[in-house]
Amino acid sequence: MSFGTVAILGPGLIGGSLALAIAERGLADKLVIYSRKDGSFPAIRKKLPHAHLTTDSSEAVRDADIVVLCVPIETMADLVKKFVDALKPTALVTDVGSVKESVDREIAPLLANKALWIGSHPMAGSEQAGFVAARANLFVGAKVILTHTGINSSEAQAKPRAEEFWQKLGASTFQIPPFQHDKAVAHISHLPHLVAAALVNAASEDYYRIAGSGFRDTTRVASGSPDLWTEIIWDNREKIAAALSSLISELKRAEQDLKGNDKTPLHKFLQHAQDQRSKLPKPNP
Amino acid sequence: MSFGTVAILGPGLIGGSLALAIAERGLADKLVIYSRKDGSFPAIRKKLPHAHLTTDSSEAVRDADIVVLCVPIETMADLVKKFVDALKPTALVTDVGSVKESVDREIAPLLANKALWIGSHPMAGSEQAGFVAARANLFVGAKVILTHTGINSSEAQAKPRAEEFWQKLGASTFQIPPFQHDKAVAHISHLPHLVAAALVNAASEDYYRIAGSGFRDTTRVASGSPDLWTEIIWDNREKIAAALSSLISELKRAEQDLKGNDKTPLHKFLQHAQDQRSKLPKPNP
Repeated sequence: MSFGTVAILGPGLIGGSLALAIAERGLADKLVIYSRKDGSFPAIRKKLPHAHLTTDSSEAVRDADIVVLCVPIETMADLVKKFVDALKPTALVTDVGSVKESVDREIAPLLANKALWIGSHPMAGSEQAGFVAARANLFVGAKVILTHTGINSSEAQAKPRAEEFWQKLGASTFQIPPFQHDKAVAHISHLPHLVAAALVNAASEDYYRIAGSGFRDTTRVASGSPDLWTEIIWDNREKIAAALSSLISELKRAEQDLKGNDKTPLHKFLQHAQDQRSKLPKPNP
Repeated sequence: MSFGTVAILGPGLIGGSLALAIAERGLADKLVIYSRKDGSFPAIRKKLPHAHLTTDSSEAVRDADIVVLCVPIETMADLVKKFVDALKPTALVTDVGSVKESVDREIAPLLANKALWIGSHPMAGSEQAGFVAARANLFVGAKVILTHTGINSSEAQAKPRAEEFWQKLGASTFQIPPFQHDKAVAHISHLPHLVAAALVNAASEDYYRIAGSGFRDTTRVASGSPDLWTEIIWDNREKIAAALSSLISELKRAEQDLKGNDKTPLHKFLQHAQDQRSKLPKPNP
């Protein structure tokens, strides 16, 4: 099974892992990797001797059947503008951005009648960043959300190929409209990140020597790249602010409960959380 | 190496694990287990055929050289009052409560001139509760805090034996006064628990299908026993309310940052958290 020529634009953690996985699984006749600068090329060449490396985005996409945008969200539109005229009209373009409404709003019009487009969000990652942290099995067992808007035919054509692409990498796929995606990840990913950071910032490091696995797990994501997460959170800030506001209300109520004389509301609060969390699906093995 | 007769009062997760570890490591000539009711005795007898099981606390402590209180914090003082006259004056009494100031304030006077006393807090646990979840290696690599007040000689005599006891179980020990202990665990353990519960309560389960390891880890502790955690949090509620109040301020500032036009404060906030968290000691292997 080959998807023809596959171009990975931006060989960071996600892009690099994609390239490694595609090579390992033989999913491309030709693998092209674009990076704005060539500083990472020696390291990439070591692991992927057959990949074609370039700093010219038009050259990268020229013969591509699949193009995956793995650059930071805020640079995506400018990059697409640069290479859009070099695309084959049958090419499938997708991305790996963790915010989807703004990406879709910017990228879809640029690609209209130029190529097929659908947004992707692979729910996979790590606290580490860069090609050095990339690994071929990053997507095995991961979930990939395809953000379909349901309003254009390009997307309808793009979807089955994007699904197959991610599934061949070991992921499972499903669909959500971009708006709902962003609201859901605000609650499930971005807000927990902010809160983990706030917990760390609120706790003096004098306390660290007594920290157990609870603190470690609760705050793990706060070790994520500040550069990367500033962009992710900033891009989805409206929906995160709304989610944060309801969390603050929840915490204020808990604060009142602690100042009262009755522990029943606290028990109810903890019981509800335990009940809810038991509905969380088990992770893929 | 034997500590003589060891009495474990309350064979739940912690008490049960203690009993299993003591038996496995041969740390007692005689192991006595007290439980208020005998419902768990068949299960305990299966795993610990040589232990002496009783529902009479005075009988349990009568010949004990070490007595470990593993019952819920709010029932501890009443239990001690029941058995205190059966104690040997050389007996070391300690506990495993996760809140220390109130325990020390209540238990130390009851034991004065009756036995040696020092509070312990083994930083080990699990989301599971009860003897079924107990395991002999629970304390291997764990930290145990001994809460010394430094004001009485009973404690000075108790400390070296308590240290040796926990170290023989595979734990490392260190000392903090009860007040500082409670303030530290408010930030490091109790507040993260409340926040994890709030995150779960604020997120609709409709979003669960997109949850990745970030949400799973950040909220893991929210699956802890509501009964157990209501008691722990309630007992330390003053210090937790103070910690919660500073966290809410931190989150409100983040909310303002999200509503502003400049992403620099957000980046600074995330960078500070990453920097701080990098100082967290690595877990024991």
